[in-house]
Amino acid sequence: MTVRESLFPSYLRDLSLEECQALLESRQIGRIAFTDADGPVVLPVNYVLVEGCVVFATSPYSSLARCASSAPVAFEIDDIDEFHQSGWSVLVRGRTNVMERHELSDVELPQPWAEGIRTLVLKISDAEIGGRRLIPT
Amino acid sequence: MTVRESLFPSYLRDLSLEECQALLESRQIGRIAFTDADGPVVLPVNYVLVEGCVVFATSPYSSLARCASSAPVAFEIDDIDEFHQSGWSVLVRGRTNVMERHELSDVELPQPWAEGIRTLVLKISDAEIGGRRLIPT
Repeated sequence: MTVRESLFPSYLRDLSLEECQALLESRQIGRIAFTDADGPVVLPVNYVLVEGCVVFATSPYSSLARCASSAPVAFEIDDIDEFHQSGWSVLVRGRTNVMERHELSDVELPQPWAEGIRTLVLKISDAEIGGRRLIPT
Repeated sequence: MTVRESLFPSYLRDLSLEECQALLESRQIGRIAFTDADGPVVLPVNYVLVEGCVVFATSPYSSLARCASSAPVAFEIDDIDEFHQSGWSVLVRGRTNVMERHELSDVELPQPWAEGIRTLVLKISDAEIGGRRLIPT
């Protein structure tokens, strides 16, 4: 067993809730993890923050709709610098709820980049939010 | 409900297994998804490919070790261009197996960037590998 040397040994620091929220505000794409019959799945999705909650749209016929409506999910964003071997990640864990039409009137929904009709809007509520930053020494 | 206009409407194309393998070869960091008592979790990890299988190391005392040893997991890499609204993602779904010491003799393991001792080496075997590319039109 050989081990590649790390050029920039780093240490991990927890991010505050305010830092996590600011990072979530700064992005348009994250990764939603849900569970189907074969285990976990991870897919990139467009999202917006609505009153601090992650909101994203999917097709009502997608596996995401079938498996992640009113189910426990995780949502992750990160930024990794492979050269400096540093970066950060934020993890949101909660349950999804389907947003009702009346809840959507004031919401600026993201236009998903990919073609296709995504009319089911899901919100991750009662979420536990945490994050870590990897700082080069 | 207002909808943000997409500047570059895009279409999705499936990646071939060869493209997925080449993309997996090109990266050092991916995201491992596993399930604990509260649902899915997603964490960035350093990895290497060994005979086409994703291999990563963790502390034997981590939640990843407790929940992802010999369990169904998903592993994801992606690259997203927020300006052009394009990108790609590769998803590996399988079960982890603990690598035994004799299996590690010829393996060049990654040095995890973060401090801490990661002596438990997990391999995702019997994996289903797929990917998609979002192409601007």
